[in-house]
Amino acid sequence: MADILKGNEVVTALNKELSEKVVSLKKEGIFPRLAIVRIGDKDSDISYEKGAIKRCETIGVSVLPVKLEEDITQIELEDNIKKLNQDKSVHGILIFRPLPKHLDENKICDMLLMDKDVDGVTKGSLAGVFTDSNDGFPPCTAEACVELLKYYGVNVAGKNVVIVGRSLVVGKPLSMMLLKQNATVTICHSKTKDLPKVCSKADILIVAVGSANMVNEQYVSAGQVVIDVGINMDQEGNLCGDVSYPNVSKIVKAITPVPGGVGSVTTSILAGHTINAAMRQGGM
Amino acid sequence: MADILKGNEVVTALNKELSEKVVSLKKEGIFPRLAIVRIGDKDSDISYEKGAIKRCETIGVSVLPVKLEEDITQIELEDNIKKLNQDKSVHGILIFRPLPKHLDENKICDMLLMDKDVDGVTKGSLAGVFTDSNDGFPPCTAEACVELLKYYGVNVAGKNVVIVGRSLVVGKPLSMMLLKQNATVTICHSKTKDLPKVCSKADILIVAVGSANMVNEQYVSAGQVVIDVGINMDQEGNLCGDVSYPNVSKIVKAITPVPGGVGSVTTSILAGHTINAAMRQGGM
Repeated sequence: MADILKGNEVVTALNKELSEKVVSLKKEGIFPRLAIVRIGDKDSDISYEKGAIKRCETIGVSVLPVKLEEDITQIELEDNIKKLNQDKSVHGILIFRPLPKHLDENKICDMLLMDKDVDGVTKGSLAGVFTDSNDGFPPCTAEACVELLKYYGVNVAGKNVVIVGRSLVVGKPLSMMLLKQNATVTICHSKTKDLPKVCSKADILIVAVGSANMVNEQYVSAGQVVIDVGINMDQEGNLCGDVSYPNVSKIVKAITPVPGGVGSVTTSILAGHTINAAMRQGGM
Repeated sequence: MADILKGNEVVTALNKELSEKVVSLKKEGIFPRLAIVRIGDKDSDISYEKGAIKRCETIGVSVLPVKLEEDITQIELEDNIKKLNQDKSVHGILIFRPLPKHLDENKICDMLLMDKDVDGVTKGSLAGVFTDSNDGFPPCTAEACVELLKYYGVNVAGKNVVIVGRSLVVGKPLSMMLLKQNATVTICHSKTKDLPKVCSKADILIVAVGSANMVNEQYVSAGQVVIDVGINMDQEGNLCGDVSYPNVSKIVKAITPVPGGVGSVTTSILAGHTINAAMRQGGM
């Protein structure tokens, strides 16, 4: 059976490091604070928000929940973002996406001050990831994968890393982040020919497609490290990843579980970005 | 022997299309104009400049050569860029790089108005390539590769494309552009393990490393399309690519020559970007 790369061990280590940072920041009068903007009452948003608030409080980052109505207008939402941009007590801003369809999501994302863009949604942050400069922040989920590999001592340099999925939240930024660490990166997607074969030749396989249990035993081989970024519901209504854990874990060397894998690390990364944002902004 | 994917055929087709665009633009009172900023008298810059002026004039794009002294200060250079940004008769700006070492190249690049950034050097343009928005322009050399493949009817969708080199001028932006066209893209570099093997399994191999004749018969296999982006001097002082043409052309299905391949297409792409920039800016 594969080694299980549990998120909670990474979280424990990260939280310790981050809590210590916060203690010393607070001594300097800097109190890191994250605004979480939620529009409407989607279950998954509420659940993520609860988790994020709890995690942030554990670390010492305070959270300002900004709850807006489902039928908010573009201009009202823009006004809210402007206020948060200007509010010096707020160092990071997270906006739940996708936004309701009547809103211009790209415009809203790009309105965020890059220095407060702790989940890497602005063009400035994404250019930062692409050009390897220190502008903004990378998307938290992409960085959670990097952090998890690092914690478990998986050196990616020179390794053949296959990433399935080309989103701006995971696939594309993660490919750039691992390239920076000297991985040889292959980016796959729905149009890739013979995907199982391409995946089975990877040293490290990262799946971020949002398709329940898609990656089965035909996609993997002995010795691989498998990172499952997906969070889906299976037909019985249980949480599951993009990787069919029962089948794949019998074959590969190491694998992240879902739940309890990458997803659980993400909120600690978010808190960490907020702390860095506060340091960059000189606090308040 | 391999089919030779000559740049001049692509150039002829592109120039025809672009010249027609210019004719109709001029009827609307729009006269596309490119500023070429050269600092010092490097032979390769002068040679590229000559070629670019000739190509642009053939197409109907006028060129404003801006010749600056090698010992120009940062502030003087910034003033020049500001003037060009403000000059409504200039629609595109190309700056020869690398700049002399006493100058802050990143700052200069990022000063360019994104709408005049016809060679994709600003963070805005690069974010445009990364996020697949229409901001700015991609680097001309990366787009020249895409255009060459398109002209010769090489469909990249679902194909295994291996790109050697991860620069912001070719490797990274090209990987994003081909990903958009549904290629499965692998990005390799100096730290890639067993590079010859990875390359030999590609359907399409693109080499942009700047190392004379590095890719030899061990890197390729029958049926491949090879795009050689390198422009180097060999030990006898002759121009050559990153691919050892005499050896590789015996094996693969198709290959670009150096000189006369990708490089010759680049200036037509530059003229094309200037024309598009003029259209976006509404001319003068």
